[in-house]
Amino acid sequence: MTEYKPIELPFESDPALLVGFSSCEGGVCAARGIQAQGVQAGFRHNPERLDLALVVAQNSCPVAATFTQNRFCAAPVQLSKTRLEDGFARAVVLNSGNANAATGEQGLISATKSCQIVAHELGCPENEVLIASTGVIGVQLPTEGFERGIPVAAATLEASAEAAHNAACAVMTTDTYPKEAALVGTLVLDGAQGLQETLIHIGGFVKGSGMISPNMATMLAVLSTDAPLTHKAATAALRRAVNASFNKVTVDSDTSTNDSCFLFATGAAYPEATPITEEHPAFDAFSAALESVCQMLARQIAADGEGATKLVTVDVVNALNEDDAERVAFSIANSPLVKTAIFGHDANWGRVAAAAGKCGVAFDQSQVDIDLLGVPVCRAGLAIEMDEDDMLKRFEQDELSIAISLGMGSAHARVWTCDLTHEYVTINGDYRT
Amino acid sequence: MTEYKPIELPFESDPALLVGFSSCEGGVCAARGIQAQGVQAGFRHNPERLDLALVVAQNSCPVAATFTQNRFCAAPVQLSKTRLEDGFARAVVLNSGNANAATGEQGLISATKSCQIVAHELGCPENEVLIASTGVIGVQLPTEGFERGIPVAAATLEASAEAAHNAACAVMTTDTYPKEAALVGTLVLDGAQGLQETLIHIGGFVKGSGMISPNMATMLAVLSTDAPLTHKAATAALRRAVNASFNKVTVDSDTSTNDSCFLFATGAAYPEATPITEEHPAFDAFSAALESVCQMLARQIAADGEGATKLVTVDVVNALNEDDAERVAFSIANSPLVKTAIFGHDANWGRVAAAAGKCGVAFDQSQVDIDLLGVPVCRAGLAIEMDEDDMLKRFEQDELSIAISLGMGSAHARVWTCDLTHEYVTINGDYRT
Repeated sequence: MTEYKPIELPFESDPALLVGFSSCEGGVCAARGIQAQGVQAGFRHNPERLDLALVVAQNSCPVAATFTQNRFCAAPVQLSKTRLEDGFARAVVLNSGNANAATGEQGLISATKSCQIVAHELGCPENEVLIASTGVIGVQLPTEGFERGIPVAAATLEASAEAAHNAACAVMTTDTYPKEAALVGTLVLDGAQGLQETLIHIGGFVKGSGMISPNMATMLAVLSTDAPLTHKAATAALRRAVNASFNKVTVDSDTSTNDSCFLFATGAAYPEATPITEEHPAFDAFSAALESVCQMLARQIAADGEGATKLVTVDVVNALNEDDAERVAFSIANSPLVKTAIFGHDANWGRVAAAAGKCGVAFDQSQVDIDLLGVPVCRAGLAIEMDEDDMLKRFEQDELSIAISLGMGSAHARVWTCDLTHEYVTINGDYRT
Repeated sequence: MTEYKPIELPFESDPALLVGFSSCEGGVCAARGIQAQGVQAGFRHNPERLDLALVVAQNSCPVAATFTQNRFCAAPVQLSKTRLEDGFARAVVLNSGNANAATGEQGLISATKSCQIVAHELGCPENEVLIASTGVIGVQLPTEGFERGIPVAAATLEASAEAAHNAACAVMTTDTYPKEAALVGTLVLDGAQGLQETLIHIGGFVKGSGMISPNMATMLAVLSTDAPLTHKAATAALRRAVNASFNKVTVDSDTSTNDSCFLFATGAAYPEATPITEEHPAFDAFSAALESVCQMLARQIAADGEGATKLVTVDVVNALNEDDAERVAFSIANSPLVKTAIFGHDANWGRVAAAAGKCGVAFDQSQVDIDLLGVPVCRAGLAIEMDEDDMLKRFEQDELSIAISLGMGSAHARVWTCDLTHEYVTINGDYRT
């Protein structure tokens, strides 16, 4: 039996480690200057579930954000976009159970009123409060939930891991677990006390599960850092991070009406520091660490895709250009035939080949190599012998990989997805009822 | 309760009737000058299933064809394309159970040998024989099946409905029933006997079920007509018909490596007639009738999508242009969230709105109307009251409709799809094993 080497992958295994960051506790509250809470406000059928989250910075601070590009974008997205025109905010309130989408003028009035309640409780200007919602589309959002929940959340705000966890739980819909991540590391910053090695934190939570796909700003995510950043630098770092993380995840190719991602930069790590700009020596390290936090969260979204049993990483290498690489990667990651084969533990690489071939990207099939679960299964477009028993064993792992080399150039792309299961059909066959 | 009128649809209910054609028996053998047969050749695990089909014209005749645009296109596609460079052929042999895709040089040798066997049996030149295959990808196709099956098929060729039915059965993979259609009508043709009202037939069969999506030429289809046509006119009519039928069907957004559609034009209806050109007065009537046959087959493909319980017609109207209309229609038809909601009998029109909004087509959500199952559920982007009991009753029907008006212009598109069910996951979770 000929020995074939697995396809060589150019991806960094952990960009955070490369820049000297490491994991820490605390989620969105890992960053100093951030308080959070999650409470029961009665938006959901199940009254025992947390459904309202509040995240508050100690002061108004630079907030970068990305939003859904869906034309049916929800009222909270429209309102938060307007509020962030100056780049600063103090707090964000989030609810699950109702998306406040396709709700017209009345939806905007409800969202505005909810922010007013937060502003009143915090004693801050109304335009410093942002809002995000997730849940069913096309149903008016009752503001009673906000009237009930916000005062409780505001009164119990904490800068603790538990409070961050509650906030992460409150945005869950069909998620089976809350999704949090945080990193800590050192940046050299300049300021009133001169050059200082400064410990900075980046943390956050996301809501994933269904209606997750690229071509979006991102899904619901609140990120925070105590690094001091200009609004412009925070925005540049967030765009780069989102593009390499949330925008590379696909559960079901459906882009939500409500995707929103916020990054609060409190600056509390070194309050008198000169804020980091894009030209600052520390920018790249911060940016890589933020990307790493987003990737930690993005992988959790794919792993916890609705009904998913496997996290699947799809790597495309040796493409002519990045656009080609990404199109092939998403074509494979979105293919129902590939995703059901994975669910069925079927090493059916022909479906990977067909998915690569269907997306309009030019390549020569006689140059294509494919690895499944790290095992060479196709070389130069042809089947090579595989050990079916070994493959079945490998399918037992929680994380699986698909790699394809197109033999056209040196560009590459990585995306994350999950398998397509009976449970996905069950969950989405009776979501609204 | 305000009364809302359903969205007005510009689609013809039955283009065949408009040009005076009506349904008839006989499938691909409805056209005079065509013989067919389907036999057991041993390509499939189940030895009792028919798996080899042969369709033969009485003489070499004009054959129009469209093929997959998948880059991993199969050996039979490559061979048939070459063979049709002159536009003429005598026969096509088809097998199920093995796609002969991703099989390289050896795959081409197998396909060529299979055609040689057919040519030998029929006593015709080898380059007059076409081939199409469907089944698993990446496994070499044993030619023993052809050696066994072709002589039997050739010896039992018939111009009967039963033989046409056998051929339709032999190309089935996960199809639950064979898909046939035929129309008969009158065209006025000119020729040796002068102007004549001539009875002509158009018939055919298709293989559908999985790996069905647009961006392709089409799936496996053999069509025939006894109308006399130039190769150029046959090709123009086939392109138009395929674009309005097979290319508007999506089961799972996966485009096959093997899609092939052939139209044999025997001319047997009036052998001495001047062949129909694109400028001929009868061309439009023929073309509309062919389109109708293809739509009858396309609807069967969607209705028999893998695991499907419902045929779903998606109509987009009042779009800015046709491209926008089609993108929105496919975005809805391919949305797993829409398709699972239909499976779950859930009138969740918010998912239709989200699917329309995610595909990059510009519209103003406050101008959007949506009907589900013929019932207005959203007007001017907002929910309107619906009778949930009535909706549940309507969900019992086998054919369901989704209509959306974008309020941007006057262009429209119609596509066919099916629901996404547990059975789809079951079928594709263990297809290869």
